[in-house]
Amino acid sequence: MAAALEETPVSYEDLADIERDFDDAETDIIRKQVLLTAPLYSRRSKTISQIPNFWPLVLEQAPPDIDQYIQPSDSALLLSSLLNLSVSHFEVDLDPRSVSIRFEFAENEYFDDKVLEKKFWHRRSRDGWSGLVSEPVGIKWKTDRDLTGGLLDMVVKAWEADKSTSTTSQSNSNGAGNSSRGLTPEQKALKKKIENTGMGGLSFFAWFGFIGRHRKSRSRSSSRTPSSDEDEESVGEDDVGMSLEIFPDGDDLAVAFTEDLWPGAIKYFTQAQEQDALSDADFESDDDEGLDEPAEDSEDEDERPAKKQRSG
Amino acid sequence: MAAALEETPVSYEDLADIERDFDDAETDIIRKQVLLTAPLYSRRSKTISQIPNFWPLVLEQAPPDIDQYIQPSDSALLLSSLLNLSVSHFEVDLDPRSVSIRFEFAENEYFDDKVLEKKFWHRRSRDGWSGLVSEPVGIKWKTDRDLTGGLLDMVVKAWEADKSTSTTSQSNSNGAGNSSRGLTPEQKALKKKIENTGMGGLSFFAWFGFIGRHRKSRSRSSSRTPSSDEDEESVGEDDVGMSLEIFPDGDDLAVAFTEDLWPGAIKYFTQAQEQDALSDADFESDDDEGLDEPAEDSEDEDERPAKKQRSG
Repeated sequence: MAAALEETPVSYEDLADIERDFDDAETDIIRKQVLLTAPLYSRRSKTISQIPNFWPLVLEQAPPDIDQYIQPSDSALLLSSLLNLSVSHFEVDLDPRSVSIRFEFAENEYFDDKVLEKKFWHRRSRDGWSGLVSEPVGIKWKTDRDLTGGLLDMVVKAWEADKSTSTTSQSNSNGAGNSSRGLTPEQKALKKKIENTGMGGLSFFAWFGFIGRHRKSRSRSSSRTPSSDEDEESVGEDDVGMSLEIFPDGDDLAVAFTEDLWPGAIKYFTQAQEQDALSDADFESDDDEGLDEPAEDSEDEDERPAKKQRSG
Repeated sequence: MAAALEETPVSYEDLADIERDFDDAETDIIRKQVLLTAPLYSRRSKTISQIPNFWPLVLEQAPPDIDQYIQPSDSALLLSSLLNLSVSHFEVDLDPRSVSIRFEFAENEYFDDKVLEKKFWHRRSRDGWSGLVSEPVGIKWKTDRDLTGGLLDMVVKAWEADKSTSTTSQSNSNGAGNSSRGLTPEQKALKKKIENTGMGGLSFFAWFGFIGRHRKSRSRSSSRTPSSDEDEESVGEDDVGMSLEIFPDGDDLAVAFTEDLWPGAIKYFTQAQEQDALSDADFESDDDEGLDEPAEDSEDEDERPAKKQRSG
């Protein structure tokens, strides 16, 4: 085929250099954006804290790349108990792409936690991969209320066992640092559990078990030559890591929260209000208010939004 | 339903105020980004100008939101004759979202133009809509070679006739400024042509006829009250404008060029090189080179990439 780089004075390395400079500029821009919008987000937080059910109503309108992960039972819990949500860039100087996503909950029948916070570190590995990695976050489920069916607990246990036994353990090694020595008992149990569980209708809360950095490191780095001495082993570790990952798209979900739901919260809230107004108008024929404002319904003042209807 | 704003100290106007401040901050960020990356884009342009077929190879890998608009005959023309492509933010101080998308062509059998440039102005209308608007750009087709089957010419004619006859004409009024007085003969002819043309396999080059600012202004502004005295008429103008628009998604396509293909060009080029290497390896079993570098093929040094295979 035409235009192989060999026939030009340009090398792959020249192009990769340019891409690196663009990436640095992009990091710089994200940092400026975080700093510039910080006071706006504080102001927004103060304003929306006065609106009951703001975040449940936003989640009701969540875009498909978030909504697809929320099962009906997750939805019931989120809509009835989510008090606050926030996204923060916790190491803006080091890497402004790292984010922490924090959920505050009211007393509820599923778990004892008042806060669940999941941190994602943006990291670059030696083979050229870059992306979000995380650590499992446990949830204190009430008896027989674990929406992940025990999976999340097992991920936490496998992670902790690996950290304490592996002498070469590194943060974010996905509990697979000892792949050459075989799996720990906790990892074996988790692997078996995953293999025996249909992961189709997996709870949104399994996301708190996301670790990251596998599979994608192979496809995304395909244009680069891995440093030769760790080639075989890193592929092996990817496979092990992947077999222990309960929420493979956890990084995409973090990005969707960070770049879509969080900045777009007022837009989604307004959509929810308009939908309410429309459905109220459908059922209240004597209502003489227009469609521009949600109809009042003083009896239901404290009612939380009803569980979302799902077609799937 | 729960949480109507009426029950809170927060008004729609408070929320709209916050959104406006976010929008201003976003504009500021885009401006900084344009200025910060400008020297990188110049450097990139110098480097890639040394690579024959750089832009045709990038277009071969274009993402679906661009690729879907490129018909096989468009593809033949673009792959054989596109010399250069560039995106510039031509009024970065006034509105950094405005963009100009410029194509340079070699001598070709379809048209006489060496340059086709389409400008998109980012504008905000009184009813709260904001987005990209444009003006039709004519193409000097060679005899019987018009890929739009005469549509683009008619858009240009209708636009110019409207500009010269309408006393109230405004830039970007979509040639519909005189809707209350009825359509001009040129507009009537265009409307009939559009109605009688199956717009399914419409040429990519019809994009140069995009004008914008209709239809979407109605759905996007649904939460606002249009200024009362122009309510009826502006809806009428939208309808007329829409019926004269030959490329309704032209703004989305401009955004895809600006935010995806242009910044991602090296990534797409690298993908094209990898695909070439893979398909070469498929057919050259004696090739002892690895997959990391495209195979040499000195006989085809000046050959342009073959016409893309399309499944649809």
